[in-house]
Amino acid sequence: MQSGRKASGMELRERLVGMREELLEELKEFLRMPSVSAREDGGGAFRECAEWVLGKLEEAGARARLLETGGHPVVYAEAGEGEGALLSYGHYDVQPPEPLELWESDPFEPAIRGDRLYARGVADDKGDVLARIQALRIYLREHGELPFRLRFLIEGEEEVGSPSLGPFVRENAGLLSADACLWEGSIKDEAGRPVIFCGTKGLAYVELRARGPSHDLHSMYGGIAPNPAWRLVQALRTIKNERGEITLDGFAELAEPPSPEDLEAISRIPFDDAALRTAWGVEELDRGLSGREALEEMLLRPTANIAGMHSGYTGPGSKTIVPSEAFVKMDFRLVAGQSPSRVVQLLREHLRRRGMEDIEVVDLHGLEPAKTPVNAPIVRLAKETWSDLGRDDALVYPTIGGSGPTSLIATGLGIPTIMAGNVADSESRIHSPNESVRVEDYLETVAYFVRLFERFGGR
Amino acid sequence: MQSGRKASGMELRERLVGMREELLEELKEFLRMPSVSAREDGGGAFRECAEWVLGKLEEAGARARLLETGGHPVVYAEAGEGEGALLSYGHYDVQPPEPLELWESDPFEPAIRGDRLYARGVADDKGDVLARIQALRIYLREHGELPFRLRFLIEGEEEVGSPSLGPFVRENAGLLSADACLWEGSIKDEAGRPVIFCGTKGLAYVELRARGPSHDLHSMYGGIAPNPAWRLVQALRTIKNERGEITLDGFAELAEPPSPEDLEAISRIPFDDAALRTAWGVEELDRGLSGREALEEMLLRPTANIAGMHSGYTGPGSKTIVPSEAFVKMDFRLVAGQSPSRVVQLLREHLRRRGMEDIEVVDLHGLEPAKTPVNAPIVRLAKETWSDLGRDDALVYPTIGGSGPTSLIATGLGIPTIMAGNVADSESRIHSPNESVRVEDYLETVAYFVRLFERFGGR
Repeated sequence: MQSGRKASGMELRERLVGMREELLEELKEFLRMPSVSAREDGGGAFRECAEWVLGKLEEAGARARLLETGGHPVVYAEAGEGEGALLSYGHYDVQPPEPLELWESDPFEPAIRGDRLYARGVADDKGDVLARIQALRIYLREHGELPFRLRFLIEGEEEVGSPSLGPFVRENAGLLSADACLWEGSIKDEAGRPVIFCGTKGLAYVELRARGPSHDLHSMYGGIAPNPAWRLVQALRTIKNERGEITLDGFAELAEPPSPEDLEAISRIPFDDAALRTAWGVEELDRGLSGREALEEMLLRPTANIAGMHSGYTGPGSKTIVPSEAFVKMDFRLVAGQSPSRVVQLLREHLRRRGMEDIEVVDLHGLEPAKTPVNAPIVRLAKETWSDLGRDDALVYPTIGGSGPTSLIATGLGIPTIMAGNVADSESRIHSPNESVRVEDYLETVAYFVRLFERFGGR
Repeated sequence: MQSGRKASGMELRERLVGMREELLEELKEFLRMPSVSAREDGGGAFRECAEWVLGKLEEAGARARLLETGGHPVVYAEAGEGEGALLSYGHYDVQPPEPLELWESDPFEPAIRGDRLYARGVADDKGDVLARIQALRIYLREHGELPFRLRFLIEGEEEVGSPSLGPFVRENAGLLSADACLWEGSIKDEAGRPVIFCGTKGLAYVELRARGPSHDLHSMYGGIAPNPAWRLVQALRTIKNERGEITLDGFAELAEPPSPEDLEAISRIPFDDAALRTAWGVEELDRGLSGREALEEMLLRPTANIAGMHSGYTGPGSKTIVPSEAFVKMDFRLVAGQSPSRVVQLLREHLRRRGMEDIEVVDLHGLEPAKTPVNAPIVRLAKETWSDLGRDDALVYPTIGGSGPTSLIATGLGIPTIMAGNVADSESRIHSPNESVRVEDYLETVAYFVRLFERFGGR
């Protein structure tokens, strides 16, 4: 990886001027394919979409193939020759468009209104996928050959939790080896600044289930029948103390402390907690957090969140019962050092130690945390590429705060993995009706990857 | 009130032998009228039922009338002349029969199978209502006149929470004055022993509502967004301590302690907590309670029960959100000294004192506690009447553990109020499909009230 000549942002974007219609028409074609992974694939429409991506990769100059996974196929491709290697991860499947009545135009008929292009999947993740393929095509047209290996891993099951990705990565480690991985999922922030994310938190998603009487009882027995809702409250009170601090035995001890570099990166991120409070309609953040402390909590500290809970009668008015069951759904966001399986084990031990082994811990979903140092070469490259485009305001976040299967690559294969250059912005409404991107952001993303490939290749 | 000659149980029941068919046919006629108070009254069928009861009262020899309430009318009647007065409370409305598919015969076409009579309302409360009217008729046929005033208050809205009863009682206190009131709602227990209940607990039914962000958030914000489900847990932990004891400020102090007589009554009640545990499928009662301690808790101590709770995502699998709202439904069962409005006030003060005034306390429903001393004359009379029928096993419970509007009479009018002699048993499935009573129990109930009227009248 070497840094190349400094090109002006205008110059880079000007390269695309004559291609504008071509690039956008191709994107619209991609967006018209309803590749909703949560649906049954009616008659091969889904595979057609995978084959379309394959065709685009070949057209761009890559050697592409479909690799079967048992679920939807992975589109894999490789271009270029050389010592270095870059891996690009994306997905060609999309979220269901429902509720349809809230869309202002057909989710699968791309429409431009104002400066934005609306369609399901344009921000998550078809825009990213195609921008990188088009960038390769432009690169090869202009420079003739790519002096490193550029590998594409484009899956079709991201929106249903990537069930085949783990086995696929393990079985195809050789195909995926690289110096760095560019994951999908970055954004431009509220102020339009490009963001580079250097990691994801892990996730342990569990359900705690308490059982009381075999059937709901008249609440005249409320003083003597074991009440599963109270039982859960008694368990939950041992997981957070009165101050809202996590008190799960051994949980804090597992967490690696944030590095000085992470803390330094945090200090450079503009963070307006007043704007968040306004957006959320709350007077205070949790535990009265504010400023850098809140940002550090959000990006670098683990959480113990209640995502849902239920017991007994929840309809209108009054019904007097001792419920027979109660459950709470919790997601623990994890930082380096905390694996989900270990956290589930801690939770079971924690409850057992308190005589609460009657509370069942159901392990629903787990993701490992993944972290690339904020001063890794790929982070520098990604930031400098923005500078080349005239954007000196790119921000480096130690993590995205959320979770994803990045650790399969970052930890599983030991490849530094970041999210950068993606097409979405803060108004993209990912997973919601009226998903969109700014048209100019899309074209800028194509230019960004052309330039990133140049930099990585030493130009 | 004087105790009269001791008649043998056989002798009393023998009086009814020739009337068996007449009494049962009349009951079936009553049961065929679908007086479901929760339904819209289609074309006056409901009023027809009230008028039928009125007719039966007149036929028995009472002076009866319908009194309008704004809702379904009250059937009021009075019989006899004299110093003493007895008030009988019952209701002619019934619960909805649904789910219909679980009935083995038409809920409104009474059917005898084995030794039981099946129909909606037979146990709650038409059997009781008619047995008392028939008892009056038999009494007057046999003795010519009744030497005290027997008053009937028969309402038509009990199964929808008696909304008109409070105003009715206040406006008609003169019509209702009596030395004692025989409320509906007693049973025979699992061993077939008649039970006399001397009171009901009060009820404060509230919803506690916590609010977080204005919309569900991605749980990547779980470390900094205020979570309403955690907020509720933090509030609930202040209402019960780790040992499950109620710690609501001022709550215990309001409760009058059980009287020595109540405690003595408790000690005479056979109570098998193992049978309860088996019926409920639990290994232990709440807080490891057992034996007399459990019975005391159930009948004489207040409760703080969670009847339901809800927040966020409760469907299958995992969804990672910070919920925007959470609520818990709680019923507090109250003992003498604890009025529902005062308890709701305590709860608000309790939360305010802890900086939790953001949690809304919605007052959904309240009932005052009501208590008649276990050694009151009417209790003795009720127990001795059972002895006259050859039943020396009647049990006196200080309260029923549950709640009802008895305090309107017991406290509002200062009339000692008990539940005794009712027709239901432990298999009656009140409010459920296949509601039933034992045919012999019905006839015994008629005999019970004939004898009770005799005793009250000094025979």
